[in-house]
Amino acid sequence: MIEQKKIKVIPLGGLGEIGKNITVFEYDNEIIVLDCGLAFPDEDMYGVDLIIPDVTYLLKNIDKVKGIFLTHGHEDHIGALPYILKQFNVPIYGTNLTLGIVANKLIEHEISDKCTLCKVNPGDIIELEKIKVEFIQSTHSIADSCFIAITTPVGTILHTGDFKIDYTPIDGKVIDLKRIAEIGKQGVLLLMADSTNVERRGHTMSEKSIGTTLTRIIAKAEGRVIVATFASNIHRIQQIIDSSILFGRKIVFSGRSMENMSKVAIELGYLHIPEGIEISLDDLDKHRPNDITIITTGSQGEPMAGLYRIAFDNHRKIKIETNDLYIISASPIPGNDKMISKVINQLFKNGADVIYEDLEDIHVSGHAYQEELKLIHTLVHPRYFMPVHGEYRHLKHHSDLAQNLGLPKSNIFILENGEVLSIDEESANVTGKVKTGRIFVDGLGVGDVGSLVLRDRRFLAQDGMVTIVVTIERDTYSISAGPDIITKGFVYVKEAEEILSNIKNIARSELEKCLDDKIIEWYIIKLNIKKAVEKYIYEVTKRRPSIIPIIMEI
Amino acid sequence: MIEQKKIKVIPLGGLGEIGKNITVFEYDNEIIVLDCGLAFPDEDMYGVDLIIPDVTYLLKNIDKVKGIFLTHGHEDHIGALPYILKQFNVPIYGTNLTLGIVANKLIEHEISDKCTLCKVNPGDIIELEKIKVEFIQSTHSIADSCFIAITTPVGTILHTGDFKIDYTPIDGKVIDLKRIAEIGKQGVLLLMADSTNVERRGHTMSEKSIGTTLTRIIAKAEGRVIVATFASNIHRIQQIIDSSILFGRKIVFSGRSMENMSKVAIELGYLHIPEGIEISLDDLDKHRPNDITIITTGSQGEPMAGLYRIAFDNHRKIKIETNDLYIISASPIPGNDKMISKVINQLFKNGADVIYEDLEDIHVSGHAYQEELKLIHTLVHPRYFMPVHGEYRHLKHHSDLAQNLGLPKSNIFILENGEVLSIDEESANVTGKVKTGRIFVDGLGVGDVGSLVLRDRRFLAQDGMVTIVVTIERDTYSISAGPDIITKGFVYVKEAEEILSNIKNIARSELEKCLDDKIIEWYIIKLNIKKAVEKYIYEVTKRRPSIIPIIMEI
Repeated sequence: MIEQKKIKVIPLGGLGEIGKNITVFEYDNEIIVLDCGLAFPDEDMYGVDLIIPDVTYLLKNIDKVKGIFLTHGHEDHIGALPYILKQFNVPIYGTNLTLGIVANKLIEHEISDKCTLCKVNPGDIIELEKIKVEFIQSTHSIADSCFIAITTPVGTILHTGDFKIDYTPIDGKVIDLKRIAEIGKQGVLLLMADSTNVERRGHTMSEKSIGTTLTRIIAKAEGRVIVATFASNIHRIQQIIDSSILFGRKIVFSGRSMENMSKVAIELGYLHIPEGIEISLDDLDKHRPNDITIITTGSQGEPMAGLYRIAFDNHRKIKIETNDLYIISASPIPGNDKMISKVINQLFKNGADVIYEDLEDIHVSGHAYQEELKLIHTLVHPRYFMPVHGEYRHLKHHSDLAQNLGLPKSNIFILENGEVLSIDEESANVTGKVKTGRIFVDGLGVGDVGSLVLRDRRFLAQDGMVTIVVTIERDTYSISAGPDIITKGFVYVKEAEEILSNIKNIARSELEKCLDDKIIEWYIIKLNIKKAVEKYIYEVTKRRPSIIPIIMEI
Repeated sequence: MIEQKKIKVIPLGGLGEIGKNITVFEYDNEIIVLDCGLAFPDEDMYGVDLIIPDVTYLLKNIDKVKGIFLTHGHEDHIGALPYILKQFNVPIYGTNLTLGIVANKLIEHEISDKCTLCKVNPGDIIELEKIKVEFIQSTHSIADSCFIAITTPVGTILHTGDFKIDYTPIDGKVIDLKRIAEIGKQGVLLLMADSTNVERRGHTMSEKSIGTTLTRIIAKAEGRVIVATFASNIHRIQQIIDSSILFGRKIVFSGRSMENMSKVAIELGYLHIPEGIEISLDDLDKHRPNDITIITTGSQGEPMAGLYRIAFDNHRKIKIETNDLYIISASPIPGNDKMISKVINQLFKNGADVIYEDLEDIHVSGHAYQEELKLIHTLVHPRYFMPVHGEYRHLKHHSDLAQNLGLPKSNIFILENGEVLSIDEESANVTGKVKTGRIFVDGLGVGDVGSLVLRDRRFLAQDGMVTIVVTIERDTYSISAGPDIITKGFVYVKEAEEILSNIKNIARSELEKCLDDKIIEWYIIKLNIKKAVEKYIYEVTKRRPSIIPIIMEI
């Protein structure tokens, strides 16, 4: 009897978190990777620019890795690619627009020569030795998104990627429910499905519903229209363009990612702009305000992006005008509300008008609500289910939803990143855990900032720091200079002269005590000074600045 | 002809911001102050605990100040009192519960002996020399809230405080619309009204609507019920208690502010708990889980509050149990979403069930929606209008709402904090601006942390710091020790040995160059070292840590 082979499913990211989606599928001597995304830092990860997954497991099994398969072109699904591809090189499979976006990234990171991009169309099947990978047309807030079906001798796994069910997508490419149903009919071993909006009742509105609202709003605009949205939402941008053209407006793209993304989308045929409609930012002045629509970045209130710069009069080319109508065609990502509000306030203060989600229906979500999820579960009818893409609360509620549809709880797997789900024809079990985690990218550094450095930054942020420097003569064992006190982020020096002078005295007397006692280990002296100063500062201020004693020896 | 006296209205806080509500009304030689609130810091105000208003204007005119009149007992309306009353002492007027809460604060700050609290009832009129102040029953998410009408020889100003229109409040004290209409009929010079929810269509639900939902949810709970809500929302707490009693549950209060507030509310007769229902936290174990309801702080996910401590197994007395049902009966205040989500995830991970606003209607707002605002505007029908309590976007939309009801734009005043609106019987004009602003409270320090200290903290938070210390011998003008490099929050030292060694060399060579050139101004030497090191670090890391060169002279 031949031993029964298992397929292993190992999410290296994307579970119990938003972003950093990457999952490993391993059968026999083949591994494929699904998506390779980044996550954005929480507010208390000071200085961190972005977070990528730890792919130690892939590096250890690099001979098996046959390729990375991409569901769609959002940062949380492709953003870590440039960093991962610097560690190992395997073919990247994805649809036209997805790879167009990836290609741009690889050029920026100067590694495009070394990488192999394999373009697929929805419907295509990539046959590896024992694994087959099928791309299936889906709908989402970016064009060209796919479900991916992975078939091994043990059975088929269907992964939804990010999706919604849009019966009237802007490009006419309706989600291929027939093929999904067919795969369901043939039997699906494991369904892995997007959990982002599982807490929302009902069904998302079609992207198309935005068009009517945009047209109605733009119809009444008396000056320029400036719309901020996600650069990757090509269909939203198409609708802004189409509505603008109805009123004879020209289109200007502003913001680096908006300019890049629209260029890629036009080249690849995903964005359609009639000849002569797009004008350059430099030609703004050649047109009347009510002949202009500007499409810009910054819908999340990001301080470096277009909309913020315009609001705070910090944009190279676009100055705010009283008759401007600003439209923020996006939802705040949790955590961004205050920044967006800051931009809205500033625009209003400058006399412009601003329309945002609280006032008008100018955004729809790209993630399936409950009724859409139920449809997919019902069509696919899997033996096992693993909710993916979400914090724990989302995974938990997605598990509840599946149970309500009749799937036994024992067939549902809420995993943690790194856990290994092993499935054969008989059963599915969590059989282990591989190394995984978060790698912080800060500036050019990848992985040189970790939790200890961040802890120090948090302490520094909280109460600043107090440095105490003293020079000691080795031979005479006496103080040559200092102690000097240097503070940063602690208090206004003027307001706290007495405190600083007391710190100096405390440090000196602690030091003298140590020297009198003939303590020769600097680290003990430093510890004593630190403790004494810390105690005094907390007593008088209830603060805990980082105390840094430095002893110079001459 | 006698010169026409004017009434001056000077908001010292609360405009263009959420919180820190305080307004000055000045007529002839009398000043009254309405509310005295604090604001909570933004995330980038590192280490700041709270923000209080700058009351320089009141200190300068202290002889005129007759009293502080409080609309209700929320922190953003009374929280700065202890700090302000340390600067000057005037009588405080407020309703029973409001003053009960204030009294507690003054005891904590050890200044209650020195302060005069004057209790009023809704309907009471305080007559000063030329100003009359009337308290009018209102409804809000705290009991005993009032509108305040200020009558001077020039006319009447009506201030709503925070309010909603609740026709069925829990305590039966319906907002006194008849008196408000009567004052409107007599003629109101200026209306100042709450703008918090002006962007929301329709009408808030009555607080009473929560009761039914709570009862339905608690009916099904199989273990303990733990409800997190705002400690000051006495009516919500009453409903939680009433629903719990229906199912034979005992009540436990947890969290410092919940314990304090419930004590005050019970003493003053605002919270009604039958004998034997409230039990101590210490007696939890004496009852079966399904006989217990715990009412706790932490509805905003605050790391120091009850709910967070329970979730992360850090609570002295309450350990999470699998059958627990947690109810978060509050809305996330903007900016708190992620913290709340963190707590929810953790509770689910521990196997408990959690109900929150996304899932059930277990919270209603305490601030009027559009239709409620329209009712007040219509009843009051003022000559002038000033929207208050809100960011600029809210003030702007409230101005739009008033215009839609027929008030000319020229009669509406969107002010900034500190601006002076002068009104006489003929006209109203902004006639100047007084000093105002934010005072940061950090630990025991009030005002010793300001924007420069915060800027330093932000830099430290972003990329940490690099200290370069060197000892120089004055006589020989040579290096005695160092340069030594000490970093904090910059990089893992192990990962960056080469960088640190290069920094050392760059600092040394820059220093030697200065010494060779006989530069004797330490600050120039320090600047040169700083620049050279900064440049190198940015080149190799794209980071900008704070560089702190220190020269010790012997």
